[in-house]
Amino acid sequence: MVAKFIIDKKREGRALGTAEIREFIEGFTKGEIPDYQMAALAMAICCRGMTERETADLTEAMKNSGRSLDWGAEGNPTADKHSTGGVGDKLSLVIQPLASACGLDVPSLTGRGLGITGGTADKLETIPGYSCSQTLERFQEITRSAGVAMAVQTDEITPADKKLYALRDVTGTVASIPLITGSILSKKLAEGAGTLVFDVKCGRGAFMKTPEEAKALAASLVGGAKAAGRKAAALVTSMDSPLGLAVGNANEVAEALKWLSDPEASDPALDLCVEQASLMVSLANDMELEAARQLCREKLADGSALAKFKAMVAAHGGDLGRFETLLKKPTFKFKIQAMRSGYVTDIDAERVGKVALQLGAGREQAGDRIDPLAGIELAVRRGDRVSVGAPLATLAKSTDPDGLERAAAELYRAFEINPEKVETSPLIIDRL
Amino acid sequence: MVAKFIIDKKREGRALGTAEIREFIEGFTKGEIPDYQMAALAMAICCRGMTERETADLTEAMKNSGRSLDWGAEGNPTADKHSTGGVGDKLSLVIQPLASACGLDVPSLTGRGLGITGGTADKLETIPGYSCSQTLERFQEITRSAGVAMAVQTDEITPADKKLYALRDVTGTVASIPLITGSILSKKLAEGAGTLVFDVKCGRGAFMKTPEEAKALAASLVGGAKAAGRKAAALVTSMDSPLGLAVGNANEVAEALKWLSDPEASDPALDLCVEQASLMVSLANDMELEAARQLCREKLADGSALAKFKAMVAAHGGDLGRFETLLKKPTFKFKIQAMRSGYVTDIDAERVGKVALQLGAGREQAGDRIDPLAGIELAVRRGDRVSVGAPLATLAKSTDPDGLERAAAELYRAFEINPEKVETSPLIIDRL
Repeated sequence: MVAKFIIDKKREGRALGTAEIREFIEGFTKGEIPDYQMAALAMAICCRGMTERETADLTEAMKNSGRSLDWGAEGNPTADKHSTGGVGDKLSLVIQPLASACGLDVPSLTGRGLGITGGTADKLETIPGYSCSQTLERFQEITRSAGVAMAVQTDEITPADKKLYALRDVTGTVASIPLITGSILSKKLAEGAGTLVFDVKCGRGAFMKTPEEAKALAASLVGGAKAAGRKAAALVTSMDSPLGLAVGNANEVAEALKWLSDPEASDPALDLCVEQASLMVSLANDMELEAARQLCREKLADGSALAKFKAMVAAHGGDLGRFETLLKKPTFKFKIQAMRSGYVTDIDAERVGKVALQLGAGREQAGDRIDPLAGIELAVRRGDRVSVGAPLATLAKSTDPDGLERAAAELYRAFEINPEKVETSPLIIDRL
Repeated sequence: MVAKFIIDKKREGRALGTAEIREFIEGFTKGEIPDYQMAALAMAICCRGMTERETADLTEAMKNSGRSLDWGAEGNPTADKHSTGGVGDKLSLVIQPLASACGLDVPSLTGRGLGITGGTADKLETIPGYSCSQTLERFQEITRSAGVAMAVQTDEITPADKKLYALRDVTGTVASIPLITGSILSKKLAEGAGTLVFDVKCGRGAFMKTPEEAKALAASLVGGAKAAGRKAAALVTSMDSPLGLAVGNANEVAEALKWLSDPEASDPALDLCVEQASLMVSLANDMELEAARQLCREKLADGSALAKFKAMVAAHGGDLGRFETLLKKPTFKFKIQAMRSGYVTDIDAERVGKVALQLGAGREQAGDRIDPLAGIELAVRRGDRVSVGAPLATLAKSTDPDGLERAAAELYRAFEINPEKVETSPLIIDRL
């Protein structure tokens, strides 16, 4: 294999062979193929695309760059879900325990946040003592004992992805469905779960801006997972407005806890949690979807899902009592109010996400420290009616009040208030 | 400027701004932009193309990465020609002195060969003492005193091109008209000549395989040169069969000397030399092309062009007497003969070039040493009639006889002999 001929082939728009892809990824992982050749190939893939078979080969090669977990034939069926990330997206904190409460074991390797979409690991680690850094052995133990584990990808899992992702980030080669598929799916396949459900976000607050792009990614993920012998499904969901009312880290955990604890809780995002957990249960247990929905609603209402969440937190060293104390810590706050009466016709997720990032709830660059108490608490949802002076949202940060007022002014622009009510579209755009 | 956003923009197929291109090339030349970002941008340019304005900006940025020569308002008009390279392409050795004999000063920075197309510098340096490594000051002096100088690009000229070309070579990003234009034209603009003529080769023995690709490159070169205020023209010429009878290094110099010395010499490639020199003269002196042709033929016939060649060789330290001695040095030879009677309907330039490379006349990798006496002497041209046993070509190498027989068998396959005569197409395919 000569790397430059493989790059040439892809530049000319031809499909690469299985061995060519495998050897290129192996060479890159070992450092034998330099970054500049990988960057050129990544760009050629961005521009020329890859067939389904090539994408599957890429995913497989990336998966095989590190260890894979094996769950054996015994024990509960295993399943996981992956979201491409959105603003206020604390859904994993509900879905994974809920699916576990329905009898699945859920091994979930998750990420730290970068940009406007917060990472599930950052949210979980606002719970004092919770550590997302677990060995693979311990991760597997927690999954089997608590029924659900949520930790971060170790260096042992898909090292090729770690290296390639860092390179793509600085070479303008992030936007490619085969490369995104390879990155997401190689990690999920390495986790070893038998069932995979994908939530591909689409809209202003998501990486995929149009339903077409999101559907294409969803199809690629589901196709790749099935080709690798897994049960798989995907939802394409709207990410135009934030999910739930909390955007930040600790406050998102608090909202998830509320949804898990309060049988009266109601939110379109909570409905989406139930739908995704139902898909996992339905696929993993070969159950009718409607029966799986029924089971999920029961396990949510009877406190089983909350119990799974608590067991998971305890197994990762987390202390929910100290978390309650943390939530009561004073922060610098700023409340914004409606300046006219009418219906909230829009809350721009992208703008909300950017303001949360400015407040310190996210990372502009890998390695930045986040402020666990920084964030936004919305007082309204899309479609609500407000009067002049009604609260729209509260901004908070814990370090100092600098920039709070400017952020509030910016956040105000995320809201659209109109005299006429506008039909709000459902969160689920498509199903695959 | 953030490099990755510029790469993103080109990946999306949008045109880059003048400052974006300039800063990217400057950053890359200084080492501030790493190879992997340049490789990604180069691939995006391969896939998405560049507008004429972007190509001109790229060329300008690359030119400005180093020194440029200034010929002032006094003295003869300056002109140069550039060939994209072919098999047996010793035409510069005739064209440049011939144009000089017609009253132009010809500063010609040329390259060393790589692959099947030999470099003019390698050919010239088979003349004992001839050094292509001259300072820019000395290069300029020779041009003004001898009327024609032929040396290699120094590190002072377009360092960006040197760095970028090396990177493109290993990242599958050679095939791009904007990048090829930037590379060729930045060097030629830095030379400072007022008139530029391009010979874009096309066919089996050339980098451009189809007339369409070759025309596109020719148009890009001429357009770019004119945008930079130069007089410019291009010929698209066939490179399906070798130019002239000699393919190698010393033997190609000998053939050029023969064409310059012998008023009876006749070859389609010599006609092409006259045509190109005429274009240079016509443009530089605002002369009718037919009058320029007339002048060129006179200066070739009366020995003026030969005198210019000799003056140039002397100015670069070369000794033509010792060159004659070199040519008489014994070599290992192998002659191939026609195995049937008929017309030579084809001589495959690519195959001839590859055999010459195997014999040691070229470099497989930069830094390889060439054998000055290795090469092929054709005994026939396309269209000639041969009888069984008539000589077709002689292969030569000076180091050892190894591989000579295998090379001869391979060379034999370059010839097509048919009972019917086939119309041979003219060398010039198009004019721009």
